[in-house]
Amino acid sequence: MLIKLINPNTTSAMTELMGDTARTVAAAGSDIVLATSRSGAASIEGHYDEALSILGVIDEIARGKPADAYIIGCFGDPGLLAAREITASPVLGVAESAMHAATFVATSFSIITTLERTRIISERLVRSYGMQNHCRSVRATDVPVLELERSSSTADAAILAECEKALIEDRAQAIVLGCAGMSNLVERLQHRLGVPVIDGVAAAVKFAEGIVGMGLRTSKVGDLAYPLPKAYAGKLAEYAPASLKLRNNDEPSALATAIGS
Amino acid sequence: MLIKLINPNTTSAMTELMGDTARTVAAAGSDIVLATSRSGAASIEGHYDEALSILGVIDEIARGKPADAYIIGCFGDPGLLAAREITASPVLGVAESAMHAATFVATSFSIITTLERTRIISERLVRSYGMQNHCRSVRATDVPVLELERSSSTADAAILAECEKALIEDRAQAIVLGCAGMSNLVERLQHRLGVPVIDGVAAAVKFAEGIVGMGLRTSKVGDLAYPLPKAYAGKLAEYAPASLKLRNNDEPSALATAIGS
Amino acid sequence: MLIKLINPNTTSAMTELMGDTARTVAAAGSDIVLATSRSGAASIEGHYDEALSILGVIDEIARGKPADAYIIGCFGDPGLLAAREITASPVLGVAESAMHAATFVATSFSIITTLERTRIISERLVRSYGMQNHCRSVRATDVPVLELERSSSTADAAILAECEKALIEDRAQAIVLGCAGMSNLVERLQHRLGVPVIDGVAAAVKFAEGIVGMGLRTSKVGDLAYPLPKAYAGKLAEYAPASLKLRNNDEPSALATAIGS
Amino acid sequence: MLIKLINPNTTSAMTELMGDTARTVAAAGSDIVLATSRSGAASIEGHYDEALSILGVIDEIARGKPADAYIIGCFGDPGLLAAREITASPVLGVAESAMHAATFVATSFSIITTLERTRIISERLVRSYGMQNHCRSVRATDVPVLELERSSSTADAAILAECEKALIEDRAQAIVLGCAGMSNLVERLQHRLGVPVIDGVAAAVKFAEGIVGMGLRTSKVGDLAYPLPKAYAGKLAEYAPASLKLRNNDEPSALATAIGS
Amino acid sequence: MLIKLINPNTTSAMTELMGDTARTVAAAGSDIVLATSRSGAASIEGHYDEALSILGVIDEIARGKPADAYIIGCFGDPGLLAAREITASPVLGVAESAMHAATFVATSFSIITTLERTRIISERLVRSYGMQNHCRSVRATDVPVLELERSSSTADAAILAECEKALIEDRAQAIVLGCAGMSNLVERLQHRLGVPVIDGVAAAVKFAEGIVGMGLRTSKVGDLAYPLPKAYAGKLAEYAPASLKLRNNDEPSALATAIGS
Amino acid sequence: MLIKLINPNTTSAMTELMGDTARTVAAAGSDIVLATSRSGAASIEGHYDEALSILGVIDEIARGKPADAYIIGCFGDPGLLAAREITASPVLGVAESAMHAATFVATSFSIITTLERTRIISERLVRSYGMQNHCRSVRATDVPVLELERSSSTADAAILAECEKALIEDRAQAIVLGCAGMSNLVERLQHRLGVPVIDGVAAAVKFAEGIVGMGLRTSKVGDLAYPLPKAYAGKLAEYAPASLKLRNNDEPSALATAIGS
Repeated sequence: MLIKLINPNTTSAMTELMGDTARTVAAAGSDIVLATSRSGAASIEGHYDEALSILGVIDEIARGKPADAYIIGCFGDPGLLAAREITASPVLGVAESAMHAATFVATSFSIITTLERTRIISERLVRSYGMQNHCRSVRATDVPVLELERSSSTADAAILAECEKALIEDRAQAIVLGCAGMSNLVERLQHRLGVPVIDGVAAAVKFAEGIVGMGLRTSKVGDLAYPLPKAYAGKLAEYAPASLKLRNNDEPSALATAIGS
Repeated sequence: MLIKLINPNTTSAMTELMGDTARTVAAAGSDIVLATSRSGAASIEGHYDEALSILGVIDEIARGKPADAYIIGCFGDPGLLAAREITASPVLGVAESAMHAATFVATSFSIITTLERTRIISERLVRSYGMQNHCRSVRATDVPVLELERSSSTADAAILAECEKALIEDRAQAIVLGCAGMSNLVERLQHRLGVPVIDGVAAAVKFAEGIVGMGLRTSKVGDLAYPLPKAYAGKLAEYAPASLKLRNNDEPSALATAIGS
Repeated sequence: MLIKLINPNTTSAMTELMGDTARTVAAAGSDIVLATSRSGAASIEGHYDEALSILGVIDEIARGKPADAYIIGCFGDPGLLAAREITASPVLGVAESAMHAATFVATSFSIITTLERTRIISERLVRSYGMQNHCRSVRATDVPVLELERSSSTADAAILAECEKALIEDRAQAIVLGCAGMSNLVERLQHRLGVPVIDGVAAAVKFAEGIVGMGLRTSKVGDLAYPLPKAYAGKLAEYAPASLKLRNNDEPSALATAIGS
Repeated sequence: MLIKLINPNTTSAMTELMGDTARTVAAAGSDIVLATSRSGAASIEGHYDEALSILGVIDEIARGKPADAYIIGCFGDPGLLAAREITASPVLGVAESAMHAATFVATSFSIITTLERTRIISERLVRSYGMQNHCRSVRATDVPVLELERSSSTADAAILAECEKALIEDRAQAIVLGCAGMSNLVERLQHRLGVPVIDGVAAAVKFAEGIVGMGLRTSKVGDLAYPLPKAYAGKLAEYAPASLKLRNNDEPSALATAIGS
Repeated sequence: MLIKLINPNTTSAMTELMGDTARTVAAAGSDIVLATSRSGAASIEGHYDEALSILGVIDEIARGKPADAYIIGCFGDPGLLAAREITASPVLGVAESAMHAATFVATSFSIITTLERTRIISERLVRSYGMQNHCRSVRATDVPVLELERSSSTADAAILAECEKALIEDRAQAIVLGCAGMSNLVERLQHRLGVPVIDGVAAAVKFAEGIVGMGLRTSKVGDLAYPLPKAYAGKLAEYAPASLKLRNNDEPSALATAIGS
Repeated sequence: MLIKLINPNTTSAMTELMGDTARTVAAAGSDIVLATSRSGAASIEGHYDEALSILGVIDEIARGKPADAYIIGCFGDPGLLAAREITASPVLGVAESAMHAATFVATSFSIITTLERTRIISERLVRSYGMQNHCRSVRATDVPVLELERSSSTADAAILAECEKALIEDRAQAIVLGCAGMSNLVERLQHRLGVPVIDGVAAAVKFAEGIVGMGLRTSKVGDLAYPLPKAYAGKLAEYAPASLKLRNNDEPSALATAIGS
């Protein structure tokens, strides 16, 4: 099973960090292919960075050897629904994966994120994924994304301190790490805190294996059907659906054809 | 990895049916052990049947060889939180597993269930799991649970018809099968409907593998901590926590001990 | 009017305490019959204790002289819907009764409960009963249930202190006592706090009288209809619906029969 | 116990109709005093009628012999919170009472109301009272309020027909009558439909008895505290709080005084 | 364009204060006409004051030269829906206007209000207007409404202090002023705080201009249709819809007539 | 006042159509500047088209003469929050503007959109903007976006038919047009339907004038602060915040600086 793990920011060191986590948890038959976005921001710390990261995610899905599943390795799950349109292979976000995983082992969790300004992105995802009753709070650490990769002891201490507050002040029963760049902290934090610490990269790998293993593919009836053929202009002309050479190996049923998209 | 799949009703033919599904999707290293409840109803079709099925679920978790994960194989997820209290190994319900799986491959789904009277049980789970914006409707087929196991063509036709209505009238993009006893219908339905059809047994097996593979165990801080030691009386005397010989191999952290339960 | 007040835990001293409260508020024509569960936990402080308390509740409803109404005397309202299935006489929980009562005399309330680990049980009931906009918070006192019955001054002080915090920090306008074992504290707390203090046992008695006085009985159309006849196995064989000798004195209307359950 | 039942519209025939219902269900020691509003609309069928009915409700609470409880006999519960400010005696609305009562005997209900234009008033109350998960729908019959009082067979047939649709199409398990003027239909409808039919007048009487019987009075800490003393001008000068001679027999606690309003 | 700004309290100095704000922001062609309620409370600080302020609002809309739009100048938006029934000209509340405006320039806001007891009125409006995910908190300052008009430095300091807490403790990104009497503080606060400070009077004037400029008028199909003709009694006899001489210059479409109200 | 109206799709005929609407409603002093996206899809009919339209929106805001306000002229409001980050001038979406406008003149509305597959985009916006209680339904017409511009009579008839269904079946009291390309239909539809018909382009123009007229600018504290300076790579290198020459004419307050972003 080929799982392509896409880092939507352009910092390859962070891709490697995520890759280490992914390979650690991957099943025997899972082949993890790493991809670092070729365009956009070095780190994603706001709506603007996130919006501009989608192009790189699309590029990695539309080009190269098709994968059995794709993982978007940024806690904002940028471009998740757009990505699901252009392939029938399952696409998983690390934020959704982490939150779903948390509900299996705890009745509540808190999310520990990086900068204050990214907090609202997580809060919106919490609502979008129906996690309002499970998520006690989103806590910012004021640690910039790229400092995580440097693994400074100051960053680590700030994250640990915020996790402890989450357990004591929010009465959270688990911690969700709110940045793919924190995935190397799981073991240490879990040991110190004594509660489940959930990293979205690991969760996405395991859930991708699970979804593929169940034989599930993205629904092509409704809003996730392949994009309609149409002209694309200017510097995005090459993104016209026809240019993407979308591969649809699934024979649609008569009913699905009738309902269409 | 040992995964114990517990059928909360007492009909072993249904356990076998679920077991077939489970083994079909299980990973190479996963060992699926089947258990049929030894007490309670032959089928679970209401709050009463469900409430009385919890004892059998507890029995199967508290006795025998400890498993790495447990699956409660009834779409009402009976006793899920109680079960999570008495073991640190992950416990997954098939309803929660199916709904979470559906959100990875579709923006909306409908649940096809058995009798009209069980519909409200599913509706309550939908809210409990935060799936209100994903679940378009719960549809009853008036097929009794045990008729599923007989796999009558009438039952199959009724289920197919209701699935079609879900796609057309609800504009659902995926189908969640609302009874563990329907797990053998996945392939046929998926072929006919052309959309993802999600069975909770398969989903729970794959997610159990995933949760265990991530190294996650149920949080023992808060409401899912082991039951407090206390006297149990009468015919349930043997269920006193001390009698359960709860195995806690996890060394609690100093913080977790301080927070306690 | 015969009202059977069932204590789902096995501690008869607590039943007596509730009985005192019940008899104090009961109307002239109301006959309060007390019952202590004959099986299960000495106190209910978690999902596990609660799940195993349902059997005792069922026993008390299914056996003995039929009552005009039943009260489940534990703030988790264990087995409420299952109990409603097996009788047409109204069944009231003390948690639901307390919360509904509070909305008649205040625009907001806080719930004061016992152990931290039971807090989430109350939080789930708040959502289940639609009280999210009325309930400001659920506050734990870390007083174990059975210490309430001992009426230690330490427990009383802890409860009073938490009530005061609820008024000042949450701006609650009323207090809901989150354990049936606190029902003897109402008067003292109300005097000290100067706001309505609502005990679920008293509320359930008065609302039971009200519901019966209106001539209302549990709906037998839909999910609260009598359990379907079916085999029950093992140590629960005697709980098969047929064995319960469910008494349905209500002649169903033609329409209700047509809709069925 | 003196319970004052206030009809917020000026049609005394409707007051009598409600009075009949109230007296039928009232307990032995309950004295029901009827009052018909002396100002405002002959029937309340919209936001405007409702807003102007509040003055009459205030008049009936602020003048005359003080009652132990007040009931606002219109399904819009007009002026409920304002009324609660000017007395410590409990004030109950018939809409809130009916909906709360319904939740004790059914997991879902539909409301049958009069004109289409009043439907949204009920829908807003449903949300305000947290009944979104219990109320399946609000159904209008296009029967004007005053036609109810005439008890025409056409009106009765229209109401019955809509109730039947609620059971079949909404799968409601109980009916809430959405107009105080329908309270004489309970018995007939219940017989025909075979499900609980809940009238708010009866529910409010029984719940008022219950709340008073529990010794509860409206919280005077927070927004329901007595109105602040201040000047009132023009034709409402006589409504200045000082003119109302508000009776506060309750000695406030030191804490309540400190928190104030 | 004639915009009538109605102060629902009877304090004309506050009307003037609002008028200053309104005229400052009004477009060239907008004519702001001020009206002070002729009946009711000198300030609105609770449900009772608010309920009795509606009559004065109705008076100002139903009498005098018809306006192109009406503004209800009190943060509780008293009588908003009733007012919309009696005219097809748009009627805007200052609370709704302020909250809608805030969502255009910030992802979250906090409301700074006057007395603690009015806080719950704002909280209810927040829910009614669907602003739960935008509004971080409602904060009371304990400044009485009429002290605002005196513009004491103590009041100003209290308001500023609470705004600062909103930014720091709630992480609000904008401030909504929760009393029409605060509209003269906008500039000073905005300068001090460095975030958008939104006053409902200014917002309502600009949105009224906008709604009128779009050619929109209140929907007369459904619950906002003109009140049904009927008798009004007692001191409110003159409020009978027929006496209001409601002006409906809009020719209803055939469809609208068919749907009716 | 300079208002830049950006069409996120690349079809200039549609820009002209929107421009006509915008100029019709614009105030005397408002200067409407039109811009057609230079990259991306000819029409936006799905998540993919929408995600790729953001780049063009950014381009139009970041380049050229700065405007006092920007309007994103597509009912999906693509890139709204990203756009708000890169300018302090207000940015308004047509979907949010239309929905907010509708709430001022009706208690409920339905949205009439184009293709079935875009329906879910509107449904998500409804939740994101807190309009769940105002929006009765989103209705697809199966009219492709570009057919609107051709103004075929078939498209018009399909839209009218769906509007009529919304009034009758949903009991909507106003219509929100779910595509900027429908803005030329307002007058005809309003005449035929007899209820408010709201077009987002007109609403956005008037609300932009209003927000600017109130002196409000986007909050630069929190998630809408200017993007953090950082490297951007590949074909998006020129989008690095430093390259955007973001103009911040607002002097931040000391407090705002302290809170930062």
